[in-house]
Amino acid sequence: MNQYALLHIPDSRYCFAVGKDEIIIRLRAAKEDKEIRVRLVYGAKYEYQTHRQSVEMKAHYEDNLYKYYEKRLKLEDVRLAYIFQIEEKGRTYYYSEDGLTDTYHYPEAFYNFFQMPYINENDRMKIVDWMPGAVFYQIFVDRFCVGDENKDFSYVNMKWGEIPTPKSFAGGDLRGVIKRLDYLQELGVNAIYLTPIFESISNHKYDIRDYKKIDPMFGSMEDFRELVQKAHAKGIRVVLDAVFNHCSMEMKEFADVLEKGKDSRYYNWFLIQGDYPKPEEMNYECFASCNYMPKLNTSNEEVQKFLLDIALYWIKEADIDGWRLDVSDEVSHDFWRQFRRQVKAAKEDCVIIGENWHDAYSYLMGDQYDSIMNYAFTKACLDYFAHDNFTGEQMAEKLNNILMRNTQPVNRMMLNLLDSHDTHRFYTEVGRDKKKLLSAIALAVIFPGATCVYYGTEICMEGGYDPDSRRCFDWDKKNWDLEFWAEVKELLSYKKKKILQQGEVRIYAVDQVLHVERRLGEKKLILRTNMTEEKRLGIEPGDYEIYEGEGLQ
Amino acid sequence: MNQYALLHIPDSRYCFAVGKDEIIIRLRAAKEDKEIRVRLVYGAKYEYQTHRQSVEMKAHYEDNLYKYYEKRLKLEDVRLAYIFQIEEKGRTYYYSEDGLTDTYHYPEAFYNFFQMPYINENDRMKIVDWMPGAVFYQIFVDRFCVGDENKDFSYVNMKWGEIPTPKSFAGGDLRGVIKRLDYLQELGVNAIYLTPIFESISNHKYDIRDYKKIDPMFGSMEDFRELVQKAHAKGIRVVLDAVFNHCSMEMKEFADVLEKGKDSRYYNWFLIQGDYPKPEEMNYECFASCNYMPKLNTSNEEVQKFLLDIALYWIKEADIDGWRLDVSDEVSHDFWRQFRRQVKAAKEDCVIIGENWHDAYSYLMGDQYDSIMNYAFTKACLDYFAHDNFTGEQMAEKLNNILMRNTQPVNRMMLNLLDSHDTHRFYTEVGRDKKKLLSAIALAVIFPGATCVYYGTEICMEGGYDPDSRRCFDWDKKNWDLEFWAEVKELLSYKKKKILQQGEVRIYAVDQVLHVERRLGEKKLILRTNMTEEKRLGIEPGDYEIYEGEGLQ
Repeated sequence: MNQYALLHIPDSRYCFAVGKDEIIIRLRAAKEDKEIRVRLVYGAKYEYQTHRQSVEMKAHYEDNLYKYYEKRLKLEDVRLAYIFQIEEKGRTYYYSEDGLTDTYHYPEAFYNFFQMPYINENDRMKIVDWMPGAVFYQIFVDRFCVGDENKDFSYVNMKWGEIPTPKSFAGGDLRGVIKRLDYLQELGVNAIYLTPIFESISNHKYDIRDYKKIDPMFGSMEDFRELVQKAHAKGIRVVLDAVFNHCSMEMKEFADVLEKGKDSRYYNWFLIQGDYPKPEEMNYECFASCNYMPKLNTSNEEVQKFLLDIALYWIKEADIDGWRLDVSDEVSHDFWRQFRRQVKAAKEDCVIIGENWHDAYSYLMGDQYDSIMNYAFTKACLDYFAHDNFTGEQMAEKLNNILMRNTQPVNRMMLNLLDSHDTHRFYTEVGRDKKKLLSAIALAVIFPGATCVYYGTEICMEGGYDPDSRRCFDWDKKNWDLEFWAEVKELLSYKKKKILQQGEVRIYAVDQVLHVERRLGEKKLILRTNMTEEKRLGIEPGDYEIYEGEGLQ
Repeated sequence: MNQYALLHIPDSRYCFAVGKDEIIIRLRAAKEDKEIRVRLVYGAKYEYQTHRQSVEMKAHYEDNLYKYYEKRLKLEDVRLAYIFQIEEKGRTYYYSEDGLTDTYHYPEAFYNFFQMPYINENDRMKIVDWMPGAVFYQIFVDRFCVGDENKDFSYVNMKWGEIPTPKSFAGGDLRGVIKRLDYLQELGVNAIYLTPIFESISNHKYDIRDYKKIDPMFGSMEDFRELVQKAHAKGIRVVLDAVFNHCSMEMKEFADVLEKGKDSRYYNWFLIQGDYPKPEEMNYECFASCNYMPKLNTSNEEVQKFLLDIALYWIKEADIDGWRLDVSDEVSHDFWRQFRRQVKAAKEDCVIIGENWHDAYSYLMGDQYDSIMNYAFTKACLDYFAHDNFTGEQMAEKLNNILMRNTQPVNRMMLNLLDSHDTHRFYTEVGRDKKKLLSAIALAVIFPGATCVYYGTEICMEGGYDPDSRRCFDWDKKNWDLEFWAEVKELLSYKKKKILQQGEVRIYAVDQVLHVERRLGEKKLILRTNMTEEKRLGIEPGDYEIYEGEGLQ
């Protein structure tokens, strides 16, 4: 047995609650160890020396190196003690806090068993119930649709449909989104995520001047309230972008510091070296190296109160359904903990989705976000569907690896996306291969979690990196591939199925064809995608197939 | 290279801040891989594609399977991206979020580098500055010393010095502790940890009836204030026991529920199945299976407020220096986060020490406790000094393993103990071998963290499991081994040395002799202990030796 591969971390993604009295326990082992059998030896913590049970664990997930044994347990006493018993070639080993040993001395187990000391309700990651079935549509507002034909168009500096520059304004607005709600409903969308809509001088509005005001280019508070109300009436949720890492240098608090320096009561809201912030010298912390986006000091209590007030304002005033958190990995954990506490108290099923491009486990333990934009999934899709870096086997390994980065409740709320305003368009990445794009969308639908479609994917919008991925939506249906559009709609409709929202998942490859299998009771649904150059298992190159049936193998 | 052994987890014990702009990064690898060289390739996150530096990492810690490479870095830009570059036999490998690869494509690094996105001040674990040099003395109050000769002795039911039963009361009190402060100062103690002193009918007082009242058996508020003031005047800190997992069934809130059941406003303060708690049926959650200690629902906001008020009360009213948290692993993380926030706001250097017998990493990430009672250390000392389960090599491996369970700031605040009111006496465990007890005390002093001496260890008190480990302190010096006492005092005095408070640590064995080496600048201090049956490296069996010198090998 390869004992170097064994890994278990108590009170972590390797042992977590999935209900008031229900937990999942995982053990990692080497994939090459095909002969081992793993049993979980568990019992109530205060009786473990004398009373224990044992149950076999199965390895359902395999990445390139490891397999992950898993067991779901319903408990009578939620104060759980456990160790793992591993059998190999007639010999028995024990895996505890003391590592792998030949013998295990239960009378002294209280020193070195693993434990799940208690399931306290406040610590348990609860599922936002609409997330596992959510089909998100991400809208970059300036480029989606012009709804208000009577507004002041003087800020618009490009024709609808031209290739945008970083400083282009095309005129899309909130009334444009309202106007297209029927369209979105028809497509099968049940949640929209809007990039920032608060007052800001830029087209993207990630540099916010006033967090409580809808940008006049986009409309008014009334427009936004109407948008939410009409969306809700259609069963569509609305998620906004919380840009809390940084603000605009034009925000009045920063302007005050620019003027008064250390004498400003807002000086400590920012992270400044010296008496005055000097934009030309960049002597204060910013987003990236953008001096017009000064970083907010989210460890400062006044800043925390200021931002929490904003978070609650939009829930109370407009009944929004979630916050996507911009550059959330650079904001303090401490702030996000208070954010969660207050947001969930105000609206329990308000979803919190971080923008962390990397392993975000330290934000996803139940005390901060529910979910992240799953860019690890994006990258895997690029490697498999677009760049030919992965075989089907490698893709299966990678997807399993991604699943094992987080707990199961988090996986069920992940925002799975192929592209966004921060990447190239996926359709461009796959070299305008519609079959491959559809196969990728199919995976984004069938993989556990919510699915997020970047506006215009359904009409095969193209584009390279920012600002090219932020082109104007072409509303002229004559230019659309209607068959493709209908197939996207068909795929998105799968998300309504209970099996995709609740079913177990197994991911593997057969003859280089990726298999993503979901199971619920006797029901089974399998997505197969073939990214090889030849027809395999009856599937054309680049194509996919979905099988649904009863009865498990 | 054994790639199964490689482990790095971002924003964890494998990468953490040790200052405003300083971090430690660790990489785990197989111990057997002696030929590999590891470099950290790091840079500012937003420039990582084009600008990077690299630095060699050294493996300072080795357990039975792994070695741990470590690098301390001071950063200009605290938004850090990094990967590991590993050389073996002329070949170069890369270790990133995507695992071990032969090549690494820096232009797409933003998808899979490791990152430390930002060091936010509120998230950083700060050192309680007096902890790395602390010599604690744990006092079980009823058995330490009778100070108030004029009190009502009617509750006392045993003679001082008799073997106690679970129901014995010997008469020790707070004035007894005050009386012995000179003694403790003389011994070299600079912190005392008192088991519970609040109103309770038991001798141990872990079943508390009134959290704001000193138990009359032990004295009054005035006595306690005097104790803290006099202790502080001598440079001795005072830490109390926070029994917040459960209370006494006689606490008025539980009594109210016993009477009114679901109609009581305190019903949800507890976790009851049914309309009324029924002690004989145990239909409510308790500590262990003690029906007289009902568990408090620490997810309930009112309970949280009630307990936080108590935590702050004793800081404000009596100026205590810390809380030791009873059964803290069964209390909600959510509660401890608020506890830390409020306790630290009230008194920044108030220490928070959990009673977690197991890997407590999920409580030690900077948002909950500072430290735990280090029972993993206790167990290792039993295996090495008392039970002959470990050679010197195995002990070195185990101690390194224990160090790698937590971040370095936490290690510097760990409460290292050989025994407590919840274990057998260590002197009994080593078969009354004074040399071995002294060697173990030497290790508890020289190992990073605070040292905790259980009352009476310095006079070789004996005892098995509770209540036997809670015997009365024998104040008759005629019965003491004064040479032993002086040697304990001498050992405890080492804790004043800067090298033990701040120095690096390396732990290894030579010819089965355990070496614990501390280094600070050019200074070096080495503890050697020989638990073999024969003299080795000039050290007698069971004995220890401390070497101090200048100049590093």
